[in-house]
Amino acid sequence: MKLYSYFRSSASYRVRIALNLKSLPYEYAAVHLLRGGGEQLSADYRRICPDGVVPSLVDGEAVLQQSLAIIEYLEETHPNPPLLPDTAVDRAYVRAIALQIACEIHPLNNLRVLKYLKHELGVSDEAKDAWYKHWLDNGFAVLEARLASDSRTGSFVYGDTPTMADLALVPQVFNALRFKVDLQPYPTIQRIYDEAMRHDAFVRASPEQQPDAE
Amino acid sequence: MKLYSYFRSSASYRVRIALNLKSLPYEYAAVHLLRGGGEQLSADYRRICPDGVVPSLVDGEAVLQQSLAIIEYLEETHPNPPLLPDTAVDRAYVRAIALQIACEIHPLNNLRVLKYLKHELGVSDEAKDAWYKHWLDNGFAVLEARLASDSRTGSFVYGDTPTMADLALVPQVFNALRFKVDLQPYPTIQRIYDEAMRHDAFVRASPEQQPDAE
Repeated sequence: MKLYSYFRSSASYRVRIALNLKSLPYEYAAVHLLRGGGEQLSADYRRICPDGVVPSLVDGEAVLQQSLAIIEYLEETHPNPPLLPDTAVDRAYVRAIALQIACEIHPLNNLRVLKYLKHELGVSDEAKDAWYKHWLDNGFAVLEARLASDSRTGSFVYGDTPTMADLALVPQVFNALRFKVDLQPYPTIQRIYDEAMRHDAFVRASPEQQPDAE
Repeated sequence: MKLYSYFRSSASYRVRIALNLKSLPYEYAAVHLLRGGGEQLSADYRRICPDGVVPSLVDGEAVLQQSLAIIEYLEETHPNPPLLPDTAVDRAYVRAIALQIACEIHPLNNLRVLKYLKHELGVSDEAKDAWYKHWLDNGFAVLEARLASDSRTGSFVYGDTPTMADLALVPQVFNALRFKVDLQPYPTIQRIYDEAMRHDAFVRASPEQQPDAE
């Protein structure tokens, strides 16, 4: 398999964790989101991924996009270790947490949106940082309340082994730390992040460990 | 089953289509997103859904959130008719299209984001409309190119029966039409929307058919 990835991309990071947890070796192809107006928009990369987004996973003839769709694919084609629970209700719970992060926090905080705020709307750096923090805090407050009260929470989001929800959570925490968001109001989130960072599959997937890290 | 829904919520609309396609009867509980500062944030609704978002689906003891997680749950518990294809690669394709809409278009255009632009950032109505149109056009351009060129496109996104991808697409088109976005550059998207609107399951799920429609 070959993964087109950018070291700091949260969506790429999710897939790297999944590949590591499932012990699937892969070739790393760096796509620099800032260099040359964004290599993801280059003609070369658009031949792989017309959408011009990372990550893309190439598996034989198949070229797959969208991190959560890729993770579901890996789960179906390489079921062990599982990244989803055994029951439909619990799978829905884990998927809902992954989607809350992927649909309600991350899209508002990614690079192209922050760029639009700055360049098209002329928003100050201060207001841009407040925007970032607003959506992050909104989402993390909801998530912290849920994780702190749900009996399914263990050393990871669901029990004591990583699921798809942790694959979404850990990159979002990394991102928040990079933007200097105070995590003190989110002790359960912080604890799960710290736990994940003791696991080799998460450490090897982290941005600073990638070949294109700066 | 009981669905907490707002007639105009795209995410609620997705789940309503899924329930109709699978011929699952359900009780409709309206949650008004604008009335009283947003009924989704009320103490009553927060007892059902602490996150304060719609939709929520109650099935026996289970309370489920996040439209795509709910649709996966319905697919697992009521597999017929299927809303995902037979092969892992094609399931990834359909999920990726649903996620492209749910993660890259819809989060930037939903009510609370448009409100933040207006009230917190003091953006003009004109700039707010341009923001809406920018992310919609960005996402639809990518999707149109894909649908127009992929051999899997039929009368629906994937072949000639509806999948999870159509459940994401149709509400997004409804939303775009409401914001008076010109769909002429997107003939394949328009054609699929028109096809869907000839099907009872889609028509009965549409906002204007809901008990809380205004």
